[in-house]
Amino acid sequence: MSVLNELQATLDVSRKSWLEAANDPACDFSIQNLPFGIFSDARNSAPRAGVAIGEHIVDLAVLQASELLRLPGAGAGASAAVSETVFSRATLNDFIALGRDAWRSVRIQLSHLLARETATLRDSAGLRERALVPQAGTTLHLPVQIPGYTDFYSSKEHATNVGSMFRDPKHALMPNWSEMPIGYNGRASSVVVSGTPVRRPNGQLKLPDQERPVFGACRKLDIELETGFIVGRGNALGEPIACADAEAHIFGMVLLNDWSARDIQQWEYVPLGPFNAKSFATTISPWIVTLDALEPFRVAQPVQEPQPLEYLRHDGAHAFDIALEVRLRPQGVQEATTLARTHFRHMYWTMAQQLAHHTVSGCNTRVGDLMGSGTISGPTTDSYGSLLELTWNGQNPLALKEGGTRTFIEDGDELTLAGWCQGEGYRVGFGTCSGEILPALG
Amino acid sequence: MSVLNELQATLDVSRKSWLEAANDPACDFSIQNLPFGIFSDARNSAPRAGVAIGEHIVDLAVLQASELLRLPGAGAGASAAVSETVFSRATLNDFIALGRDAWRSVRIQLSHLLARETATLRDSAGLRERALVPQAGTTLHLPVQIPGYTDFYSSKEHATNVGSMFRDPKHALMPNWSEMPIGYNGRASSVVVSGTPVRRPNGQLKLPDQERPVFGACRKLDIELETGFIVGRGNALGEPIACADAEAHIFGMVLLNDWSARDIQQWEYVPLGPFNAKSFATTISPWIVTLDALEPFRVAQPVQEPQPLEYLRHDGAHAFDIALEVRLRPQGVQEATTLARTHFRHMYWTMAQQLAHHTVSGCNTRVGDLMGSGTISGPTTDSYGSLLELTWNGQNPLALKEGGTRTFIEDGDELTLAGWCQGEGYRVGFGTCSGEILPALG
Repeated sequence: MSVLNELQATLDVSRKSWLEAANDPACDFSIQNLPFGIFSDARNSAPRAGVAIGEHIVDLAVLQASELLRLPGAGAGASAAVSETVFSRATLNDFIALGRDAWRSVRIQLSHLLARETATLRDSAGLRERALVPQAGTTLHLPVQIPGYTDFYSSKEHATNVGSMFRDPKHALMPNWSEMPIGYNGRASSVVVSGTPVRRPNGQLKLPDQERPVFGACRKLDIELETGFIVGRGNALGEPIACADAEAHIFGMVLLNDWSARDIQQWEYVPLGPFNAKSFATTISPWIVTLDALEPFRVAQPVQEPQPLEYLRHDGAHAFDIALEVRLRPQGVQEATTLARTHFRHMYWTMAQQLAHHTVSGCNTRVGDLMGSGTISGPTTDSYGSLLELTWNGQNPLALKEGGTRTFIEDGDELTLAGWCQGEGYRVGFGTCSGEILPALG
Repeated sequence: MSVLNELQATLDVSRKSWLEAANDPACDFSIQNLPFGIFSDARNSAPRAGVAIGEHIVDLAVLQASELLRLPGAGAGASAAVSETVFSRATLNDFIALGRDAWRSVRIQLSHLLARETATLRDSAGLRERALVPQAGTTLHLPVQIPGYTDFYSSKEHATNVGSMFRDPKHALMPNWSEMPIGYNGRASSVVVSGTPVRRPNGQLKLPDQERPVFGACRKLDIELETGFIVGRGNALGEPIACADAEAHIFGMVLLNDWSARDIQQWEYVPLGPFNAKSFATTISPWIVTLDALEPFRVAQPVQEPQPLEYLRHDGAHAFDIALEVRLRPQGVQEATTLARTHFRHMYWTMAQQLAHHTVSGCNTRVGDLMGSGTISGPTTDSYGSLLELTWNGQNPLALKEGGTRTFIEDGDELTLAGWCQGEGYRVGFGTCSGEILPALG
């Protein structure tokens, strides 16, 4: 199939861009990446679609209006009028809804336009001036309107650590955990884009020395280092997505910080799961890295024992080798401390299995739905994806680079997630996912 | 305030309609009710806003075009253009977003137009023909686009019954239950309107005689008799709604059936709560009964002991006296069997407390958000709101009127919820909330 051949060419590691910053092996936004987002700037305050490359953003609306970017025949349900303005909208949902052929076609055209040997944009100062926006100074927005947010719990190391602390170390992993990707419905309304300050939540805290709970500011505010995937093609109510087909329903991935109030969580979560402990904010990174860009970093998932039930089986490799970091920078301090380093490939359940399990009951999904991986913890104590685990519920404070220690997050702290796939001489990176903590309401 | 005086007049029990069916003391849709919904019919297949009265629907778009219905000065964020077409849309969200003054103004104008002594519509065959649609033959749609769905667990009797069966009878009620309205995020995508068939879900079942779960059709399919409220005014992220202000954020109420797969639930729900056991479908009634219409039926909530923490306190009466029923009609059988009768006034936590608790962490809500009450069980064994409780997990089958018994729901069964407030000589009713069960996918 020639589209797949052309798509393969976009991943050619020898392809370089005439935007030299993109060719730095440590640049997240190489010509092999081309992640989608929504941005605005001083010149045009209307949020619109863009693709990150090097230190710039390609304005897709401008490219389309200049007839340098064409959308293939509108997909199911999309009218011609929709596709003509699809890049001028404040979310990517309508573009994503055009379908995988449209995503791939845009990717192929952009890779060609930005390649070192293509003169069209490279040699036209006027076109470049209109179509390329420096990332510095732009505002990045939530890339999709999120109809539903689901969070999974698919790291075996994380589930074991939390089970040991909150329940019983001898039976840390529940019997159901090894049989299905356990998940729960999260709160979509409070998903915010990287850079949005997060207010420390108030809530009920059950202190060990008091019979009744007290009301107050969370004392055990935490991060959860996760990735999330964005549904690119939904399914109708009553029509499950088969595990083998599931990846075709995924548009791409983001970094996700599932902020967690551990003290509120511990008191509220039995029997219906986390609620106020999580629903005050979830932060995602602004750039959606497509599954096509991640293809060279596909690796085998961990061996699953026992073998999953048939509806959760898929042949081949369905994990992705994404390096991940968590950094903390206290207010007024220059240099952040890296708290943990881990890898997405550690995850026990794959995204395909998550989506197959989510829909096997007949539950429908929609374009733009966000599905969190669950906290990504590795096997070593410096690869845990939460402060809860890194400090073992506050017992082992972490030392910070410029002095001081942390058990949980303090007001003014800025927490940053970073993630990237390292190729030979290039990166497919996610950028960062940050949030600074504001004091609780008095 | 004269608006409140006019509003009070709409509740005058002596007010009758020239639509005589509305004056029947057993008619759900009296002139005191005037619930909002979305409908379409053979004459006009476009879904649009209507109000139920007697055996008819008032077409609000027609009334507005005929200048018989005026919207007050557009509320915050609503342009004049929005309000001119607000009744021609496929959901009520934009109308609701106009604010409480708009809801009340429309209610006052309709009550006047439909009153026996008002000639405008009554004496104009042409206007009546265009503005009044017989309910028989119309299609009722989901009345709102639901950005978020939350389900609470606020009946003490229900929580005690479930805790006794699924956990430990001696510690059936968790310590947190008496301190806060426990809730969880549900799946908004699968909320459907009454009349939509519901497919029996497949999933993982853990049978007592087998070590590993099996995959198959749910064997313990159940209803949960609930009400839900629709958020009429949201709150910004980080800005909680005070308990005393919470009712002003509620547009109205619906009946809600939180279909539940008990066997899937029991295996999956620890530690993150129900997921596939609930997310395959939730059915709501098509008519939203406004809080203004429910005002005469306001009663005191049960005494709360211990006294809730301050953020959950409100003075006065915040429960509503709504009679509720569950009926089951097997396929091919004429007459339904009433399985249970109960009352919304039994609920321990109020809607205001639910909304205050939901937002106290800073979580934002949006116009159209749906908040389920939790299963409404009364104190007696014939007032339980689920088959799980009515048959005590299948131990005590229920006899059906035309023969046969039920422990849980069988394929082809139609389950119907009904609810109403009975005034002296009139009703403020919800209509019904029904769904027929289709066999699981093979």
